[in-house]
Amino acid sequence: MLATLIHGPRDIRATEVEDATVQRPTDAVVRVVASCICGSDLWPYRGVQETRKTHPIGHEFVGVVEEVGSEVREIEVGQFVIAPFAVSDGTCVNCRNGVQTSCLQGAAWGADDKDGLPVSGGQSALVRVPWADGTLVATQEMPPESLIPSLLTLSDVMSTGHHAAISAGVGPGRTVAVVGDGAVGLCGVLAAKRLGAERVVLFSRHASRQALGREFGADTVIEERGDAGVEAVHALFDGIGPDCVLECVGTKESMDQALHSVRPGGRVGYVGVPSGGAELPIRTMFGGNINVAGGVAPARAYIPDLLPDVLSGAIDPGRVFDLTLPLAQVADGYIAMDERRAIKVLLQP
Amino acid sequence: MLATLIHGPRDIRATEVEDATVQRPTDAVVRVVASCICGSDLWPYRGVQETRKTHPIGHEFVGVVEEVGSEVREIEVGQFVIAPFAVSDGTCVNCRNGVQTSCLQGAAWGADDKDGLPVSGGQSALVRVPWADGTLVATQEMPPESLIPSLLTLSDVMSTGHHAAISAGVGPGRTVAVVGDGAVGLCGVLAAKRLGAERVVLFSRHASRQALGREFGADTVIEERGDAGVEAVHALFDGIGPDCVLECVGTKESMDQALHSVRPGGRVGYVGVPSGGAELPIRTMFGGNINVAGGVAPARAYIPDLLPDVLSGAIDPGRVFDLTLPLAQVADGYIAMDERRAIKVLLQP
Repeated sequence: MLATLIHGPRDIRATEVEDATVQRPTDAVVRVVASCICGSDLWPYRGVQETRKTHPIGHEFVGVVEEVGSEVREIEVGQFVIAPFAVSDGTCVNCRNGVQTSCLQGAAWGADDKDGLPVSGGQSALVRVPWADGTLVATQEMPPESLIPSLLTLSDVMSTGHHAAISAGVGPGRTVAVVGDGAVGLCGVLAAKRLGAERVVLFSRHASRQALGREFGADTVIEERGDAGVEAVHALFDGIGPDCVLECVGTKESMDQALHSVRPGGRVGYVGVPSGGAELPIRTMFGGNINVAGGVAPARAYIPDLLPDVLSGAIDPGRVFDLTLPLAQVADGYIAMDERRAIKVLLQP
Repeated sequence: MLATLIHGPRDIRATEVEDATVQRPTDAVVRVVASCICGSDLWPYRGVQETRKTHPIGHEFVGVVEEVGSEVREIEVGQFVIAPFAVSDGTCVNCRNGVQTSCLQGAAWGADDKDGLPVSGGQSALVRVPWADGTLVATQEMPPESLIPSLLTLSDVMSTGHHAAISAGVGPGRTVAVVGDGAVGLCGVLAAKRLGAERVVLFSRHASRQALGREFGADTVIEERGDAGVEAVHALFDGIGPDCVLECVGTKESMDQALHSVRPGGRVGYVGVPSGGAELPIRTMFGGNINVAGGVAPARAYIPDLLPDVLSGAIDPGRVFDLTLPLAQVADGYIAMDERRAIKVLLQP
């Protein structure tokens, strides 16, 4: 089968490897219908995150179940399934708390699990899915082709944008600013509107992203950054800023933008994977009662909530995909995202 | 009148100064019935926080209104009032949001206001109260002597413990750990129980504080700190820790204790004034979805909620006072708290 392997910085390729198979009785094997490249895949691609040994990559995919192990009870062969970006058993105390990303038996796609058994990457033709019952969410019917991109965003970016919004306390009547105009930030706009936000402001400098942000529900776009951006957003909200800020980048600059934009007593929901030496300035937070919530999104907890709205067409987060490539050309997809020519790349097997 | 002045490290004395008077039409003058010394007053006392010039000190007091300015509408001469630890106008957008500590016209007791006019300190016989209508909370009747200590805690420590609990998301069925056995931590225990916490654990090594913590509702006391403390608290809660942790100290060590104690997806409510170089480790927070909320408590927002429970005797936070001194001996009170011989010192004029 074809699988994407990362060998080192800027060396990511689709390669023929042995087919994924059931290794444990709780496994399933899924034939991938669509997968994609994540902004966070660019960290190892750029060498910001070290790649110690060649391993499969990709953590977002949807597909059809091809085989299940003897102890799989819920997931059935032939079902269409959405895989969240982390493996979880669905039964441990953290899973029961809705924090499946902290599953006590969890694993990451493309890495070795706790017993040293390699887990498939998502940018592949077939994927071995550990803890299939806990990890996967099946749809009741085979969805139409047109919904595949939006269903695929539930793996990560839509669930993550939703986590940012939930963590920031977005709800009816709330005012919101979104830092980051990547796929997650744009999904954050969509999530905030879906949750009833009164007004949503997007920080963005890119015409195409601004346009999609507005279509997703952003009422205002601010092009300024840093102090000028803070001034601009404060001016829009009583001179003090919005109730909620979604931090969807993960750099020190973006977090500072978020912390200084939100009003006193407001909440920053952050989901950008922290890069560099970004620590949180507690004194700034303390004086203004700025709360910081979020982290790695428990997509598994959110997919059942978001799925009906995707299936009904109420939300169409799949529009973040602006480039589709065959899996064999995955390397071109990484280049396009690295050069910011594409917001997000969808891969077809 | 007698007022407490800080001249520099370990040089705090009660001194005769000119009587406080109404300076602005929105002022009131309050004759202090009781004031007290705060843990945070020890920072300048110990020289950890610099004292650039001699100024009055103290930010917690209750008393009787002696005089009001011509524009004071709500507060009346003769009323018993509770002063929160920050001045607020009660009308600006931050006050309306319940974040009176960020009042756009706010001021701190004992410091100069935005126009350079000195504001009285609370450890005095008389206090000039700016924005009397916004700042003060009056009781309907003159309270009995026996309730004075508990009413006084609403100025700061009880409201601050409550803020820690609210910020940490404490509610019915929640499990809670409290880091810090000072007056705020002990009030945090009381607040958590009042909010319906299922189980409360207090980190404490001091016999007298442990005893009061248990009387306030702590189900378990953990004497260990650091990794051993984390292990002990995890062992009590499914191996993962409690839902909520109240951080009531403000050091790097106490915040680390809190962050490592709380369960994945849990929330740290912090109210300890950050001292030293305590930045928040965002990577630790990110992976475990640890949320951090809190800051400087908007006591003014909470006093109306807490007051009925103090007046009815449902809660008796005044028990944190274990030493009462005349204002003239305030210096002895600072020494007793600095040496941890007293949890909290009440001052009578």
